Amino acid sequence: MSERRRGRVTIPTDVDVVPETLELVKRWGADAIRDCDGTEYPEELRNVDAKVYSTYYTTRKDNEWAKGHPDEIQQMYIMTPFYNAVESTLRIHLMNHLYPDMLAVNSRDDISRWWEVIDRTTGEVIPAEGTCFGIREGEIEPEEQWHYEEDTGDVVITGAKEFHDYTVSFLAYIMWDPVHMYNAVTNDWKGVEKQITFDVRQPKTKEFSMERLRKYIADNPHIDVIRYTTFFHQFTLIFDEFAREKYVDWYGYSASVSPYILKQFEREVGYPFRPEYIIDQGYMNNTYRVPSKEFRDFQDFQRREVAKLAKEMVDITHECGKEAMMFLGDHWIGMEPFMDEFKEIGLDAVVGSVGNGATLRLISDIEGVKYTEGRFLPYFFPDTFHEGGDPVKEAKVNWVTARRAILRKPIDRIGYGGYLKLAMEFPEFIDYVEEVCEEFRVLYENIKGTTAHCVKRVAVLNSWGRMRAWGNHMVHHALYYKQNYSYAGIIEALSGAPFDVRFISFEDIRENPSMLDDIDVILNVGDAYTAYTGGENWKDEGIVTAIKRFVYRGGGFIGVGEPAAYQWQGRFFQLSGVLGVEEETGFTLNVDKYNWDEHKHFITEDCKGDIDFGEGKKNIFALDGTTVICQRDKEVQLAANGFGEGRGVYISGLPYSFENSRLLYRAILWASSSEDELKKWFSSNYNVEVHAYIKNGKYCVVNNTYEPQSTTVYKGDGTSFELDLGANEMIWYEI
Amino acid sequence: MSERRRGRVTIPTDVDVVPETLELVKRWGADAIRDCDGTEYPEELRNVDAKVYSTYYTTRKDNEWAKGHPDEIQQMYIMTPFYNAVESTLRIHLMNHLYPDMLAVNSRDDISRWWEVIDRTTGEVIPAEGTCFGIREGEIEPEEQWHYEEDTGDVVITGAKEFHDYTVSFLAYIMWDPVHMYNAVTNDWKGVEKQITFDVRQPKTKEFSMERLRKYIADNPHIDVIRYTTFFHQFTLIFDEFAREKYVDWYGYSASVSPYILKQFEREVGYPFRPEYIIDQGYMNNTYRVPSKEFRDFQDFQRREVAKLAKEMVDITHECGKEAMMFLGDHWIGMEPFMDEFKEIGLDAVVGSVGNGATLRLISDIEGVKYTEGRFLPYFFPDTFHEGGDPVKEAKVNWVTARRAILRKPIDRIGYGGYLKLAMEFPEFIDYVEEVCEEFRVLYENIKGTTAHCVKRVAVLNSWGRMRAWGNHMVHHALYYKQNYSYAGIIEALSGAPFDVRFISFEDIRENPSMLDDIDVILNVGDAYTAYTGGENWKDEGIVTAIKRFVYRGGGFIGVGEPAAYQWQGRFFQLSGVLGVEEETGFTLNVDKYNWDEHKHFITEDCKGDIDFGEGKKNIFALDGTTVICQRDKEVQLAANGFGEGRGVYISGLPYSFENSRLLYRAILWASSSEDELKKWFSSNYNVEVHAYIKNGKYCVVNNTYEPQSTTVYKGDGTSFELDLGANEMIWYEI
Repeated sequence: MSERRRGRVTIPTDVDVVPETLELVKRWGADAIRDCDGTEYPEELRNVDAKVYSTYYTTRKDNEWAKGHPDEIQQMYIMTPFYNAVESTLRIHLMNHLYPDMLAVNSRDDISRWWEVIDRTTGEVIPAEGTCFGIREGEIEPEEQWHYEEDTGDVVITGAKEFHDYTVSFLAYIMWDPVHMYNAVTNDWKGVEKQITFDVRQPKTKEFSMERLRKYIADNPHIDVIRYTTFFHQFTLIFDEFAREKYVDWYGYSASVSPYILKQFEREVGYPFRPEYIIDQGYMNNTYRVPSKEFRDFQDFQRREVAKLAKEMVDITHECGKEAMMFLGDHWIGMEPFMDEFKEIGLDAVVGSVGNGATLRLISDIEGVKYTEGRFLPYFFPDTFHEGGDPVKEAKVNWVTARRAILRKPIDRIGYGGYLKLAMEFPEFIDYVEEVCEEFRVLYENIKGTTAHCVKRVAVLNSWGRMRAWGNHMVHHALYYKQNYSYAGIIEALSGAPFDVRFISFEDIRENPSMLDDIDVILNVGDAYTAYTGGENWKDEGIVTAIKRFVYRGGGFIGVGEPAAYQWQGRFFQLSGVLGVEEETGFTLNVDKYNWDEHKHFITEDCKGDIDFGEGKKNIFALDGTTVICQRDKEVQLAANGFGEGRGVYISGLPYSFENSRLLYRAILWASSSEDELKKWFSSNYNVEVHAYIKNGKYCVVNNTYEPQSTTVYKGDGTSFELDLGANEMIWYEI
Repeated sequence: MSERRRGRVTIPTDVDVVPETLELVKRWGADAIRDCDGTEYPEELRNVDAKVYSTYYTTRKDNEWAKGHPDEIQQMYIMTPFYNAVESTLRIHLMNHLYPDMLAVNSRDDISRWWEVIDRTTGEVIPAEGTCFGIREGEIEPEEQWHYEEDTGDVVITGAKEFHDYTVSFLAYIMWDPVHMYNAVTNDWKGVEKQITFDVRQPKTKEFSMERLRKYIADNPHIDVIRYTTFFHQFTLIFDEFAREKYVDWYGYSASVSPYILKQFEREVGYPFRPEYIIDQGYMNNTYRVPSKEFRDFQDFQRREVAKLAKEMVDITHECGKEAMMFLGDHWIGMEPFMDEFKEIGLDAVVGSVGNGATLRLISDIEGVKYTEGRFLPYFFPDTFHEGGDPVKEAKVNWVTARRAILRKPIDRIGYGGYLKLAMEFPEFIDYVEEVCEEFRVLYENIKGTTAHCVKRVAVLNSWGRMRAWGNHMVHHALYYKQNYSYAGIIEALSGAPFDVRFISFEDIRENPSMLDDIDVILNVGDAYTAYTGGENWKDEGIVTAIKRFVYRGGGFIGVGEPAAYQWQGRFFQLSGVLGVEEETGFTLNVDKYNWDEHKHFITEDCKGDIDFGEGKKNIFALDGTTVICQRDKEVQLAANGFGEGRGVYISGLPYSFENSRLLYRAILWASSSEDELKKWFSSNYNVEVHAYIKNGKYCVVNNTYEPQSTTVYKGDGTSFELDLGANEMIWYEI
C-alpha cells in the first residue's frame, strides 16, 4: 500500500455499511463520502478522514412550504395535442394524456395573457372571450373565441373553423417534481409523499430558501460539501397518463417559466412575451430547432437571473464554511456551464454522470470551478447488482470509454453512487474499481497542469456554439436515438481525439469572421434544417462566403449527414461546391450522374471491411471532379474534394467505434492537408491510442479494448517501436 | 386461318424484306405498314392491302432551309454550372460541359434582355454592362456588371463579390437536333449530316413548313397516314462534351423558347418575361418542382399556340386526303394530350411507345382522336435481335405488363418498329407475336365500346393533375430511377387495377372543393416538397380542410412516402391526424413513441413473407391510436388509421409487383371501408386478375405470370370456382 496513492475518489455510504465504507476508503483510496437518494449518512462516519458530501435539493423536499405558497409553485408551459374541429364548438380537455398528479392547470394567473389558443391550420392566434369585440351586427358566423371551464378543465372554442386543428398552450403547476416522480416510479416506492417543486426565483420562496439553506448547514456540521441537486429549474420532463415518460429534453427550458419570471423578462427585453416563444409550435425549442431570437433572449435572461440567484446560495455556502458543488443535471436549467455567467457564480465544483466520452467532456471542460468530478457507472442499484449481473463488464466499458476523454481533458475526481451494500457482494467489482482508482490517480498525476498535445484545431459549427459544447445531438444525456447516433458518433470520437476542439455558432462567425483564422478544420454535422446543421443560416451570404473563404485559403470542411443544407437558389447543400456532393431531392433526377467509381484514399487506409456509416444518408451523389471514396447502391457515403487551397470531406454518418474514430482522425488530417503529420504520436493499430503531454515530458499508449493488442507506436519525431499491450492496458513513457 | 381475325396491327418494313412483309401481313394479320428511322418504304408494297404510315419530321431534315434562316433555328435556355468568384473578375465560358456541335450561343438577340446573370449566393440579378449607371463618384468597389465576349465565348463579370457563386442563363441555337444526335451517337452513324432544328412557330419557317408538308404529301401518294414525329418542340435533352446524355426531361419545356415566342408570351400575359421563369434556379421546372404561376402561364400559352399551329398541319393533312397521326414523344412539347386544347387539333390518331402499364394508359386514355396505337417492345434493333439474344422474353414481359392496362382501357392498335429483317431471324419471336396479335384482337373485340367494371373511384392528387395523368414520377418515359421507382410503382399498379383512376390537382380542389364528392379514395405519392406531394399547397387551409372533410365524411386517403409534407405549425405531415403517422425530422426526438406493435390487417392478408417497400422512407412513427401494420427497426412502413367516418393509410413506398398491386388494391378497399366488396370479380391468387365488362356481358381471367397458376375466381355475385391457367393465359367468360 505504501507506494499507492490516495484520494480523488468519492464513494457512497449508508447506515448499514459502516465497516465496508471504511474498507473502501482504504482499498479505493477514497477521500470523499456521499449520501444518495434513499440513503442516510451514518453517525459513525461523522469523523472519518474524508470529505463529506451531502445532496441538497434547492426546490423541493418541503411540501409544507409549497402548499402554503401555491402561487410560488413552479410552472411549466404545456401544449395540448392538435384537436380537429368538426363543428363550431370544440372542447379541449387540457389534462388529457398528462399524469394527473404531476401537473395542475394554472388558471390563477390571467389566462388571456399567459395562455394561447392557436389555429394550427393557419397559425392564427384565437382571442380569449372578452378580449375582442365579439360578433358584429349582421354577421352570421361567430368569430372564433375561447374560454376556460374550471369545472370540466376544458378550453372551449366557439366559432371554430370546421376541420381546422387547434392547440392550447397553457401554464401548469408542477405538483410532483419530475425527477422525484421518476425515482418513485422507477423504484416502485410506495406511499411516498409527492414532492412539489417550489420556485426559488419568486420573492417569498427566495427569502425562505436562503434561510432554509443556512439552517440546513447549521443542522449538519459534519458536512463539508453541499452537493446542489441542483439549482432552480428542472429540464423538461413530462409523464403521460400511464406514468410513462412522455417528453424529455435534458436541455429544455419550458419548465422554467411563470408569470412572475415572464413579466420580468418582458421588462428586460422591452417587447411583449408570447407563449409561442416557449411553445414553439409544440417543439418546445428543443436543441434540434434553429433557435429563434426570442428564445435566445429568454435563455440569456434566464442564465443571468439563475446565475445571480445561484451565486447568493453559493455565497451563503462559503460564508458557512462549506464548499458548493453542483450536480450537472436535473434542476440545472439556466446553469449553462460553458457560458460566461457560470464562472461568476463561484462554485467550487461540478459533478456529473459520465455516460461516455462526450458527457465526460461536458464536465471536464467546465472552467471557473476548483475541481470537477465524474460519477461513473454502474450506479449501485439492483438493476445491475443482482444475481447473475455483470457489473464488472459495465464498469469496464464505462471506464475505457471515459478514459479516452479523460486523457484529453481530465476531470479531477471520480466517484460512484448508490447502495454500497450491493456492490460489496461483487468482490471482483471491488477489485476492478480498485484498479481503476489507482489508474486514474496515476493518469491524473502524469498529466495535471498540462494540455494534451493537439494535432489540429477543430471547430464544430452549429446554431448553438459553445452553449451546447459536447452536448450536440444529446436528447436525454447519453441515451441512444436511432436518428442521431450516426451524428453523435462524431462528437464522441472527438471527445478522445488529439484535437483542440471548439464549438462555434453562426453568430460567432457573423460577429467576427476572422475567428476562423485560427481553426484548421470545421465540421457541420446533422440533418437538414436542424440547429446542428443550421437551416436558414446557410442562406446568409456572410456565413457562406466566410466558410468558402476559409476553405479556399487552405482550411478543411467536413460535412456529415446533410451539411449546410437549405433549399435555396438551385442547391440543397449550400456548400456543394466545397464538399463536391449534393443530395437528390427529386429536383435533379433529370441530371445524369456519372461519378460513381470508388477510389482508394488516405482517409480509409486503416478501415477493414465495410465501413459502418450508421443510418447514413440516402440519395447523395458526387459532382464531377469529386473523389468518391465509398458509395453504396449509387448513394455516396464518403467523398473528398478540393476547393482552392483547401479541402472538403463528406461523410454520410459515423457512429462511434475505434475504427470510425480513426477514419475521422484521418479525415481531419486530410482536410487540413496534413497527411504528413499522421505518424506522430500515433498507433498503427486503431484500437490503441497515443497521447502526448509535451510540457510534462510524458506520453502514454492506451489499449481501448478488452483484448490484448499489438501495435507500432510512433513518437513525435516519427521514430517508432513495436508494442504489445494487455487488455485495457495503459503504459506511460517519458518523452 | 379462316377463323382468325385480321387487323389492328402495324409492322415495319424495308426495301430488302418485301416477301417477309407480305408473310407477316398474313401471319400477324397486319393492316398497316410503316417506315422507320433508317428504313425506306419499298416500291413493291405501294399497292399492298394495308395502310401505309410515313414518319414525318416537322422541324428537321432540311438543313438548307435552316442555314438560310439562322434566326429561325430553334433555341433552348441553358444555365451554366455555378461558378465561384475568387476575385472581382469572373469569366464563365458558356459552352463548358456542353456538346459543341449541338448548341450555339445566341448572341444575335438582345442578350441584356434574354440572358440573366444571377448571384446564386444571394439570388440577385446582375445587370448587363450599359444597362445600369455604372460606378458612382467616390465609390471604391465597382458594381457588379457583366458583358459577353464573342471571341472567347465567355461572360465576364466585373465587380464580382468574392466567394459568391454566379450562373449565366442564356439562349442557345439547337444546331443538332437532340433526337437525331441521340440516334446517330447510339447507332454510331458515320458521316451523318447533323440535322438542325428549325422553328415552325416563327413566320418564315411556318410559311415554308406548310408548303413543305403539302409537297411531301403530293410527292408520296402511296402514304395513307402522316405519322408526325412530332410537332414543334423537342423535350429537354442535352449532351455533354463527351456526347453523353447530360440532362433529360421528357416533359421539359426549356427547348421551346425563342425571343419571338417569348415576346408573344409577354404580350399575352401582360407582364415582363424573365429567363428565370424557365431556368428555375437550374431545375428547369422539371415535373418534381411545384410549378410557379409564371411557368404555368408559359405552359398554358405554349399549349394554345402549339395546338393552333398543329391544327393547321392536321387540316392540311386532311385536305390532302390523309390521316394525321402523332407520335407521343420527341418534339411533343405543348401537345399535352390530356388538356382541352388537344381535342381541338383534330388528329386522327396517337401512337406511342409502350414501356409498361402506365405508358400504355398515357396513350389509351387520350380522348379526341379516332384511334390510339401502342408501339411494343422489343424494337427490332441489334441490341436485342443478335445471336444469343432472347427477344421472346422481352416481348412476353412487355406484353403481359401492358396487357393489364389494356384490359382497363384498350389502345385500338398495336405495332412494332425497327428492322424487320432482324426479327425474321427469330422464328419463335414471329410465332409469339402472332399469338399476341390474335390475343389482342380477341381482347379488343370483347371489350370494345365498354368500360371495364370499376370497383372504386380513385384520385391521385398532386400539383399537376390531369396534365401529368399516368406520367407521375416519369423522368424519361418508363426508365428506372432509384429515387422514384417506389412511387412509380403505385401508378403502375393503378394502370391495370379495376378502378376509375383520375389525376387531380390542388388547383382543381381550390376551384371546386365539391369535386371530391364523387371520389372514394385520394392518393398522394412522393417525397416532401415535390410537385407530386405538393409542398406549400399543404399550407393552404382550403386544401387541408377539403381533404379532411372528405375523409371525415367517409373518404379514404392513402399517403405514400412523405404525403402532405410541409414543415408548418408543428407538423411535417400536415395530414398526420388523418394518416396517423409523422416523420421524425429531429424536432420530435424528445417525444416518447410507444406505438410499435404490429397488427395483422386486411390490407396485408395476401402478402407472403417480407413486403417490398422499395426505398421506403426512414423515420416514420405512428401516433397513438394508429394501427401499425409493418414497422422495421422502429420505422413504420405501413399503417392504418381511422378519421371520422373515413380512413387513412400510410405506405412508405411500393414498387410495382403483383403482390404489391394486391396490397394497394386491398388498401384502397379498406380506405373506402369496402372490405366486403373484396370478393367480387376477384382472384384469390394475386398473380391472376379478373376484369369484368358488364355491358358486354363478359369477363376475363388473366394470368400475369410466365408460369401456370391456380386460383379461386370470384364473380360479381360472390360465387366462385376453381381455375387453373397456363402461363400468361387469358380466359374469357360470359357473365
